[in-house]
Amino acid sequence: MAKRVAVIGAGPSGLAQLRAFQSAKMKGAEIPEVVCFEKQSNWGGLWNYTWRTGLDENGEPVHSSMYRYLWSNGPKEGLEFADYSFEEHFGKQIASYPPRAVLFDYIQGRVVKAGVRDWIRFSTPVRFVKYNADKGNFTVTAHDMKTDRMYEEEFDNVIVASGHFSTPNVPEYPGFDKFGGRVLHAHDFRDAMEFHGKDILLLGSSYSAEDIGSQCWKYGAKSITVAYRNAPLGYDWPENFVEVPALERVDETTAYFKDGTSKRVDAIILCTGYKHHFPFLPDDLRLKTANRLAAADLYKGVVWVNNPKLFYIGMQDQWFTFNMFDAQAWWVRDVIMGRIALPTDKAVMQADVVDRVEREDAGQDAHDAIHYQGDYVKELIAETDYPSFDVDGACEAFFEWKEHKAAGIMTFRNHAYKSVITGSMAPVHHTPWKDALEDSLEAYLRN
Amino acid sequence: MAKRVAVIGAGPSGLAQLRAFQSAKMKGAEIPEVVCFEKQSNWGGLWNYTWRTGLDENGEPVHSSMYRYLWSNGPKEGLEFADYSFEEHFGKQIASYPPRAVLFDYIQGRVVKAGVRDWIRFSTPVRFVKYNADKGNFTVTAHDMKTDRMYEEEFDNVIVASGHFSTPNVPEYPGFDKFGGRVLHAHDFRDAMEFHGKDILLLGSSYSAEDIGSQCWKYGAKSITVAYRNAPLGYDWPENFVEVPALERVDETTAYFKDGTSKRVDAIILCTGYKHHFPFLPDDLRLKTANRLAAADLYKGVVWVNNPKLFYIGMQDQWFTFNMFDAQAWWVRDVIMGRIALPTDKAVMQADVVDRVEREDAGQDAHDAIHYQGDYVKELIAETDYPSFDVDGACEAFFEWKEHKAAGIMTFRNHAYKSVITGSMAPVHHTPWKDALEDSLEAYLRN
Ligand SMILES: Cc1cc2nc3c(=O)[nH]c(=O)nc-3n(C[C@H](O)[C@H](O)[C@H](O)COP(=O)(O)OP(=O)(O)OC[C@H]3O[C@@H](n4cnc5c(N)ncnc54)[C@H](O)[C@@H]3O)c2cc1C
Ligand SMILES: Cc1cc2nc3c(=O)[nH]c(=O)nc-3n(C[C@H](O)[C@H](O)[C@H](O)COP(=O)(O)OP(=O)(O)OC[C@H]3O[C@@H](n4cnc5c(N)ncnc54)[C@H](O)[C@@H]3O)c2cc1C
Ligand SMILES: NC(=O)c1ccc[n+]([C@@H]2O[C@H](COP(=O)([O-])OP(=O)(O)OC[C@H]3O[C@@H](n4cnc5c(N)ncnc54)[C@H](OP(=O)(O)O)[C@@H]3O)[C@@H](O)[C@H]2O)c1
Ligand SMILES: NC(=O)c1ccc[n+]([C@@H]2O[C@H](COP(=O)([O-])OP(=O)(O)OC[C@H]3O[C@@H](n4cnc5c(N)ncnc54)[C@H](OP(=O)(O)O)[C@@H]3O)[C@@H](O)[C@H]2O)c1
Repeated sequence: MAKRVAVIGAGPSGLAQLRAFQSAKMKGAEIPEVVCFEKQSNWGGLWNYTWRTGLDENGEPVHSSMYRYLWSNGPKEGLEFADYSFEEHFGKQIASYPPRAVLFDYIQGRVVKAGVRDWIRFSTPVRFVKYNADKGNFTVTAHDMKTDRMYEEEFDNVIVASGHFSTPNVPEYPGFDKFGGRVLHAHDFRDAMEFHGKDILLLGSSYSAEDIGSQCWKYGAKSITVAYRNAPLGYDWPENFVEVPALERVDETTAYFKDGTSKRVDAIILCTGYKHHFPFLPDDLRLKTANRLAAADLYKGVVWVNNPKLFYIGMQDQWFTFNMFDAQAWWVRDVIMGRIALPTDKAVMQADVVDRVEREDAGQDAHDAIHYQGDYVKELIAETDYPSFDVDGACEAFFEWKEHKAAGIMTFRNHAYKSVITGSMAPVHHTPWKDALEDSLEAYLRN
Repeated sequence: MAKRVAVIGAGPSGLAQLRAFQSAKMKGAEIPEVVCFEKQSNWGGLWNYTWRTGLDENGEPVHSSMYRYLWSNGPKEGLEFADYSFEEHFGKQIASYPPRAVLFDYIQGRVVKAGVRDWIRFSTPVRFVKYNADKGNFTVTAHDMKTDRMYEEEFDNVIVASGHFSTPNVPEYPGFDKFGGRVLHAHDFRDAMEFHGKDILLLGSSYSAEDIGSQCWKYGAKSITVAYRNAPLGYDWPENFVEVPALERVDETTAYFKDGTSKRVDAIILCTGYKHHFPFLPDDLRLKTANRLAAADLYKGVVWVNNPKLFYIGMQDQWFTFNMFDAQAWWVRDVIMGRIALPTDKAVMQADVVDRVEREDAGQDAHDAIHYQGDYVKELIAETDYPSFDVDGACEAFFEWKEHKAAGIMTFRNHAYKSVITGSMAPVHHTPWKDALEDSLEAYLRN
């Protein structure tokens, strides 16, 4: 009987896994039976936008953390699929910082072409996974919300691709229970128009604070205050956008900061990051890691060292995204198909993890971190038939991107970069980001 | 070995169950080992207020649906514990519509006195329950979030007291994905001050719409529009509070109703009810019922007919609350302790369910429904040692309450009723509800 493989999640990582198997099949290989469980009613993971917050139509936690006017925060040239270029999908080269809807369309295009949609069981959260030591396989318990039926099936391998930017890390500060305005996590932020004309406070000093702050500024918030815990973002912000030291407490109307200053605010948005959260995995299978480039306990960044029949995709913090998930998915596929052998000695796998951690820790700055993750992508790609591409060129796009951000945080998205897949230059977008209030797919592609 | 009983949830229902066992123990009986699993870090269920929405500090769905300035929507004389009066707790009689904090204090008082807090494992969601046909018992999988440890334990009985007003029913209407303001479910409503000066739209025409609308009015919303699907609430609303036919669609700023009218609104609050949601229960144990007085598949309203070692408390729609949960908990305790025998024939239990459904359906109006549930409480109490009390008198309080609401929806909470436990009259509250903006325990008890 053919092996059975369960993939949990049909976001970019899970879809990469389906495409990896389908690509082997196309080339004539016999592949296992692949079943993908997806709790949402559509694919795309975080890129599947919803107006919902909190719990979804089935009473499950809403997965997506994305918001209406989100545009890619890095150049698309850093994430392009090596087997499916932007030009192939759109029939032309497009600008470098596509809005959400455009990237969703691109992600979808590859898997529509691959014809893997019917490998996926939609509206079906995985409730539990158990390893059966006697049989050497897994029992997956899934809940089909369309029929309200829970059932168990056995699989030889399980690949966890459920993402780790969905379950919010939500700290409490004194006074939150008394504050009269809305207190929300970035995960529940949806429409910047809600904050038009408002004074807003953001906590955190990473991508979410930067991007939600910039977006609220773009859509007419009255003022943006970002409180950092350790270091400010440090960009050259517009006049009504300030960074202040850490929050100490709030009262009904006002926030008080570590430096003794205070500010009356209408809403507080906690841009305080996310948790790796796997409520469906027991202790012996559950990854516990910080959000870093060298994730804990994963050999080659993907094999669960405590049970190498279990894999995780996309669990690292991310400079590289789609193409890294591809590199991982192709590599995991080849392990499952017996093309790549794993060390039989657990200690060898553990040593690999330690080594990755040390190498990451040896890096000095973002430049080193980008190279580190680029090298990881190269390492995996070299061992499979994933189309090789100029990873160093993609790193260069990231370096330029960082320079463009430093030069102008509200203008960096007006720049264009060269594709490392097709070699062609992206056009400059027809409208500067700050003026492009309408950001539908149609509007973005109009050139 | 003593029997082991698992109670899922430490809200009013679960706490009633603990108190029921503790009361038997006090009277000299040998009781089973009782373990209560509670996913929140404190007891009180919905009454344990939090500023959080969506997911909690552990990444679990926030349980409470209550909001800051919530006051009891029915007279406290309808819910008083027969074994622990308001006078015993507060040392005096108090007014009839206590705010949330006051009722929380009261609920807590009884179980503090009973000394059952260490029967509860806090911050511990139950992830799964499985019936072991071979052993005739249950395996409960729980997740201790304090140590991030998941573990299994076996129990002879399981009592589900996890509530059914926590998982929102969230319908979608055309245009929600384009609307520029906040769209939220009543479950995520927290602070009426957020809507001060705003035009708000509420969907639904039951308790949440009525009470959230009234509260936003009290705290200065500019206008309240309630759209009903079937029938309006029909109260004599203030001038800036209107009821309109069902919503058809929204655009960026405006809601359009079935009768062709429209209204520009700033926020939409879905007061569209809740779901019975038990993600931790497999098909053979999972209750599926409408929100009604005669719940499906529960013999005597509490015994799972398909496996009578499993019980559910508080799963009915509720006129009676705390005292009904007590009646149920004492009754379930006596089944588990062998004091009450269940029918050995499943058909007999099923016939009981059918009979209850028919009797509920035969009722004509709210008056009949209140009597129906009052009779149910009387039926259970008569079969245990729960202190008997004047249930018909409690029904009378409900009838008066309905009259007071009809006479003035913004003034009904200014009335006072007579306790059926101690016979004493409640004082009239020192401040009319609409002027009592400060509603802390201290403020409410100041007489
Ligand atoms: C606000 C935000 C903006 C971002 N912007 C960018 C960007 O501009 N460019 C970029 O490259 N990256 C961006 N990212 C990074 C993002 O992590 C990746 O782009 C990508 O979405 C990760 O893919 P994934 O498949 O690993 O996870 P996800 O996209 O999170 O997908 C995981 C899937 O698993 C499903 N799932 C979860 N639990 C279960 C379960 N129990 N059972 C069944 N299914 C389950 C989910 O429903 C989801 O579909 C952003 C992230 C965030 C939070
Ligand atoms: C907005 C609102 C206002 C209300 N106002 C009133 C009122 O004024 N008067 C009145 O009498 N009634 C009121 N009610 C009715 C309410 O149902 C009852 O008062 C009461 O809270 C029900 O008690 P319960 O224990 O059955 O459920 P809950 O109070 O919901 O408690 C259930 C408990 O189970 C826990 N739990 C859930 N899942 C798990 C799990 N998997 N593992 C472990 N623990 C779990 C929860 O954390 C919670 O503590 C109101 C309800 C709502 C929604
Ligand atoms: N496409 C886009 O435009 C876009 C937009 C948003 C996010 N994203 C992506 O989303 C992912 C997550 O980014 P993120 O910014 O949400 O998370 P993150 O990068 O993990 O950053 C979390 C931030 O929260 C702060 N923080 C954590 N706990 C805190 C506390 N208790 N009090 C105050 N601050 C606290 C951290 O501060 P310290 O630094 O002090 O630890 C850090 O600044 C990234 O992959 C990012 O690229 C993309
Ligand atoms: N203490 C308090 O003050 C207070 C406050 C709020 C709630 N509560 C309690 O909370 C519990 C729940 O009350 P609830 O009002 O939230 O729920 P509910 O009583 O179940 O009412 C749900 C309402 O939503 C409507 N609805 C459902 N689906 C809809 C859809 N798709 N479109 C439009 N309308 C839809 C229903 O309309 P139809 O009638 O047309 O079916 C109904 O009016 C009750 O026990 C109540 O006592 C108490």
